[in-house]
Amino acid sequence: MNKNSSNIMALAPNTSNKRETVCIFGTGDFGRALGHKMIQSGYPVVYGSRSTQISNLIPKDAEVLSHAEAAQKAAIIIIAIQRQHYNFLIPLAEILRGKVLVDISNNLKLNQYPESNAEYLAQLLPGSKVVKAFNTVSAWALQSGTLDASRQVFVCGDDVEAKQMVMNIVHALSLTPLDKGSLLAAQEIENYPLQLFPMWKFPIFLSLGLTAFFFFYCLALDVIYTYIYEKNNFSFFIAITIPNRVCPVVALILLALVYLPGIFAAIIQLYRGTKYRRFPDWLDKWMLCRKQLGLIALAFASLHVVFTLVTPLRAFVSWRTSKGIISQVLNNKTEPLNSTNAWISDSYLALGILGFFLFVLLGITSLPSVSNNVNWREFRFVQSKLGYLALILCTAHTLVYGGKWFLSPSAYKWYLPNIYMLSLVVPCAVLVVKFVLIFPCVDKPLTQIRQGWERNPKHSE
Amino acid sequence: MNKNSSNIMALAPNTSNKRETVCIFGTGDFGRALGHKMIQSGYPVVYGSRSTQISNLIPKDAEVLSHAEAAQKAAIIIIAIQRQHYNFLIPLAEILRGKVLVDISNNLKLNQYPESNAEYLAQLLPGSKVVKAFNTVSAWALQSGTLDASRQVFVCGDDVEAKQMVMNIVHALSLTPLDKGSLLAAQEIENYPLQLFPMWKFPIFLSLGLTAFFFFYCLALDVIYTYIYEKNNFSFFIAITIPNRVCPVVALILLALVYLPGIFAAIIQLYRGTKYRRFPDWLDKWMLCRKQLGLIALAFASLHVVFTLVTPLRAFVSWRTSKGIISQVLNNKTEPLNSTNAWISDSYLALGILGFFLFVLLGITSLPSVSNNVNWREFRFVQSKLGYLALILCTAHTLVYGGKWFLSPSAYKWYLPNIYMLSLVVPCAVLVVKFVLIFPCVDKPLTQIRQGWERNPKHSE
Amino acid sequence: MNKNSSNIMALAPNTSNKRETVCIFGTGDFGRALGHKMIQSGYPVVYGSRSTQISNLIPKDAEVLSHAEAAQKAAIIIIAIQRQHYNFLIPLAEILRGKVLVDISNNLKLNQYPESNAEYLAQLLPGSKVVKAFNTVSAWALQSGTLDASRQVFVCGDDVEAKQMVMNIVHALSLTPLDKGSLLAAQEIENYPLQLFPMWKFPIFLSLGLTAFFFFYCLALDVIYTYIYEKNNFSFFIAITIPNRVCPVVALILLALVYLPGIFAAIIQLYRGTKYRRFPDWLDKWMLCRKQLGLIALAFASLHVVFTLVTPLRAFVSWRTSKGIISQVLNNKTEPLNSTNAWISDSYLALGILGFFLFVLLGITSLPSVSNNVNWREFRFVQSKLGYLALILCTAHTLVYGGKWFLSPSAYKWYLPNIYMLSLVVPCAVLVVKFVLIFPCVDKPLTQIRQGWERNPKHSE
Repeated sequence: MNKNSSNIMALAPNTSNKRETVCIFGTGDFGRALGHKMIQSGYPVVYGSRSTQISNLIPKDAEVLSHAEAAQKAAIIIIAIQRQHYNFLIPLAEILRGKVLVDISNNLKLNQYPESNAEYLAQLLPGSKVVKAFNTVSAWALQSGTLDASRQVFVCGDDVEAKQMVMNIVHALSLTPLDKGSLLAAQEIENYPLQLFPMWKFPIFLSLGLTAFFFFYCLALDVIYTYIYEKNNFSFFIAITIPNRVCPVVALILLALVYLPGIFAAIIQLYRGTKYRRFPDWLDKWMLCRKQLGLIALAFASLHVVFTLVTPLRAFVSWRTSKGIISQVLNNKTEPLNSTNAWISDSYLALGILGFFLFVLLGITSLPSVSNNVNWREFRFVQSKLGYLALILCTAHTLVYGGKWFLSPSAYKWYLPNIYMLSLVVPCAVLVVKFVLIFPCVDKPLTQIRQGWERNPKHSE
Repeated sequence: MNKNSSNIMALAPNTSNKRETVCIFGTGDFGRALGHKMIQSGYPVVYGSRSTQISNLIPKDAEVLSHAEAAQKAAIIIIAIQRQHYNFLIPLAEILRGKVLVDISNNLKLNQYPESNAEYLAQLLPGSKVVKAFNTVSAWALQSGTLDASRQVFVCGDDVEAKQMVMNIVHALSLTPLDKGSLLAAQEIENYPLQLFPMWKFPIFLSLGLTAFFFFYCLALDVIYTYIYEKNNFSFFIAITIPNRVCPVVALILLALVYLPGIFAAIIQLYRGTKYRRFPDWLDKWMLCRKQLGLIALAFASLHVVFTLVTPLRAFVSWRTSKGIISQVLNNKTEPLNSTNAWISDSYLALGILGFFLFVLLGITSLPSVSNNVNWREFRFVQSKLGYLALILCTAHTLVYGGKWFLSPSAYKWYLPNIYMLSLVVPCAVLVVKFVLIFPCVDKPLTQIRQGWERNPKHSE
Repeated sequence: MNKNSSNIMALAPNTSNKRETVCIFGTGDFGRALGHKMIQSGYPVVYGSRSTQISNLIPKDAEVLSHAEAAQKAAIIIIAIQRQHYNFLIPLAEILRGKVLVDISNNLKLNQYPESNAEYLAQLLPGSKVVKAFNTVSAWALQSGTLDASRQVFVCGDDVEAKQMVMNIVHALSLTPLDKGSLLAAQEIENYPLQLFPMWKFPIFLSLGLTAFFFFYCLALDVIYTYIYEKNNFSFFIAITIPNRVCPVVALILLALVYLPGIFAAIIQLYRGTKYRRFPDWLDKWMLCRKQLGLIALAFASLHVVFTLVTPLRAFVSWRTSKGIISQVLNNKTEPLNSTNAWISDSYLALGILGFFLFVLLGITSLPSVSNNVNWREFRFVQSKLGYLALILCTAHTLVYGGKWFLSPSAYKWYLPNIYMLSLVVPCAVLVVKFVLIFPCVDKPLTQIRQGWERNPKHSE
């Protein structure tokens, strides 16, 4: 009867205050760390081991028995052994029948085996209830108690009740369980700790590629061209001048690329007349990494801001300033204030500052704890309305900055345009198409489609 | 018996691993999206629809039946139809008796109807258990799976058990349920997704009003006055010079307004001799938007910082610098270092930097994830002690900056004071009154009152 | 039967929708505030009080009875009285047998009593189930409803079921319960609200000590030395010049101190040949405050950045620039561009910018909401790999900045080295030892040890 109640009502056992015994198979590093933590949280722990000789590494208050004896003492058995040794469990199948087996294993490579370790375990022991859990926590984190990184424990399993029992243990260890559904999710959960920023890969490679391209483009035009034709050695431009040309260009292009897939999606939906057909795969993937693209753009924009602000501290700039003033003095000619120049200089700075300000605001709202505290309307207001405003301001900043050089032939060294001209292509295209899309005659059918209306209901998939 | 157990113990059904069937009334956009997501999470879904003809838009694995048949298959029925059509449910009252009805509807306007949709539904079908949920999630978010914005699902209802069943489903869909209490909360929950930063409205309008006022004030004094009396066209001041005068003024006033209501509250409590009478409504509202006021003040302060740092990059400033140096050269007179000037210039910069630094610290601690990790004593230490220190430093920064001009008649164009003088009124008043309030003879009774002591216990409301 | 069900299944009582009655002993400030909030959340509340006369301060819908009568009405009794008066509960022991007593008391000092209040209560009434909760919430927060600070309520108790009942109430009040285990944790929970940034104390004192030392060191060399030997009054250096020398030095040393304990730990593990023996206490403590050290280092680095960026705005710097240009003019000598100088100036600026950029990135990932969203591998990649890269860049920044002065005798005023030389000692030591540790012949045994391998298994503890 006690056992029954423990199964039905793990949250509030009605006969005792004690937590239930947990059995751990395997006395390796992680098994020991987990056992330690469980004993601290009030669980009686019994280890199943080949040698029942008590090792001094095993937590003091834990019992060590043979696998069969240990399994009989608990309803939950944590399998802290490697996948290669799972088949030694087959002889114990009868004892393990109906028990909850917790697979905590990790692999060394992504998708190392055709099926996940947990599914493999479930195939070996069809009578047991397999739950995947704890693989995302490190032994070191459990031991040291400093859980700076994630406290999340992903849990999945086919048996809802077994999963709940495991989630209760996770809670009791001061960790946060996250139900990921059935055992089919085990593959994903086993891959999770092996991932290194998977969503960031494409945006980072893209931005590194753009950076490299524009860096060498600038190097050619600003350093090599100058060296060949003007005999000036400006190689020190590599440290600040060129990075400060490349950063804003990459930032602006990446910011435009955040809004480009939305434009494509709108055009596709308008063309198809329905929202119920899937977008092409590349568009789906692109849309899912918009946040990452935006944050990398923000990083480049921030670098641009700091590179710009240190300008007056550079030896080269002081020298140039002195030279200008001295030449005015020697020519005995004081230039009057050029009001147009003052307007251009001040307005492109102001546009840049406001654009960057909005950009930082977007970055702050994409922090998980901030975006969790806004509703959908607010989130879309910030990310869409303010985002477009930031794009407009940054594009205007670039246009005003470079405007006077568009028609000047000296800007086309080796007949190549300056890079800020290249940087304007994508943002201007996005802004023009977006401008067309907000005309009522285009916006109205689009809104209808997005609310579920279909032009040709029969033709939809 | 199965049904009984499912009602008693939704968390851990003891006879099967399957999730319970969920019925959805209505095959509109949101009904379909929710059904999709539920099927993905392992729930059998049955749709109740007028035409039982299977539409190709409905998820493949779902059944489509008449409303009556569908309702009989499930203990939970999601009402994905509009409020206007709720009365068609009345004939089904007998079938729906004892069932859990989940109202997911939203309105188009705040407080569109006298009672909330969920309460209206509960009135129509008194035998059913109505739960409000899911209205804060968008169909798009459910479909795309990219829940960048809030994963929170507000749940309310009069029946605790029914609410728990719905919250279990919310959990299973990887969303975060938030229990908001009884069905009385439904109105608030229905208004939630229609809100656009309600707490921010007053602070934003206030700061925009202040900004506009000070902008035109500066425009008059700095551009128009100069143009009329000195024939100088300084219209380009609009881009940077004037914003950089307005931003710090607005920031300082807003920061002082964060601490003013606390001063008022202390005076009211001292005067009344009790803390158990409610503050006037305006004060209550003001106190609730202090965080927003502070963050907007921080935004203005940040803009001021960036506007100030770009100063040396401005064409006007380079021209002014050159002019100064050239005139020194031509007059053959080198100015010696003015040590007082150096002291004033360096100390107002240093005060500003330290004040801004503390201000940013306050901003960071108001991030939800940071403030959740500090206890009350720590939170009040940062927000009150460090906040006042920031206010003192910023006020001192302004005083040192403008000090020398207070007595100079040239600072009073058209007999109007310069705006930084106006900006000092509120902060100085706050600091003076606060200084009085920390005297022991005032602080002691105030502390007693705040711990629950009352001067005239009988007179309290 | 009703009572039974309520005990077994607090989450979903099967006979009624009503929440259970809660009894509160004591009508003090916190008792009243908690009662108010509970009534709002739908709990019937009954107060136990010496005088059953209804005070107008008690929430309207609450009943006030004698202690004995009130206790009989509820299964949960909240003890809102001070520890000194606990012994008046002894005569009620029979009535309180089997009930859940919630201890909400706080002390005035850390570790005021030998045992926690909750354990003391449990000793007085061994037949009751004592749960510690709610002591971390303030009365003001409950009343005003503005829970800006933590919503976390720590709960501990020996009876799992009783704890669950209390956690359900916490949930219902829209607060977040956090299970801290058995009643042994009560001491820690009672100390929690009295703490003022305990983890920050050592790092803050250390950084203040370093700041003070380097400040006076600079004051002696830059102001006093100059005044004595060169008769120049540079006292205004106190405002910006000296802070801008001290900040980067302290930041760099603190950043190196973040990585130093990891180096020590590796050496100790290599020496001992096992990871299963505890580190010395000082090392453990040091490792636990690395995050705080790093964030303070970031604060100093940020101040250094802003202090540096305002340089061109300083009156002293303008004066120095003018003087330089004028002297060039008067000497009729224009200096050519010194390409080496331009390289050095630009590259130390660029190194500093990149180092600071990585440093800010580290700071952002240490925000709780961000670090919760990365897995262990990602967290360690950022904090270890990028952290070391930041340290390398910042050290290189300092080396390039000061490089040319190392051999110049004028840099050794009073035979003392300049402070940036002192600042390089710790970072260089850390980098050199780390460089040795990544050699395969050292790295391989270390990795094995960290995976649980032991050189002398018998000698381990």
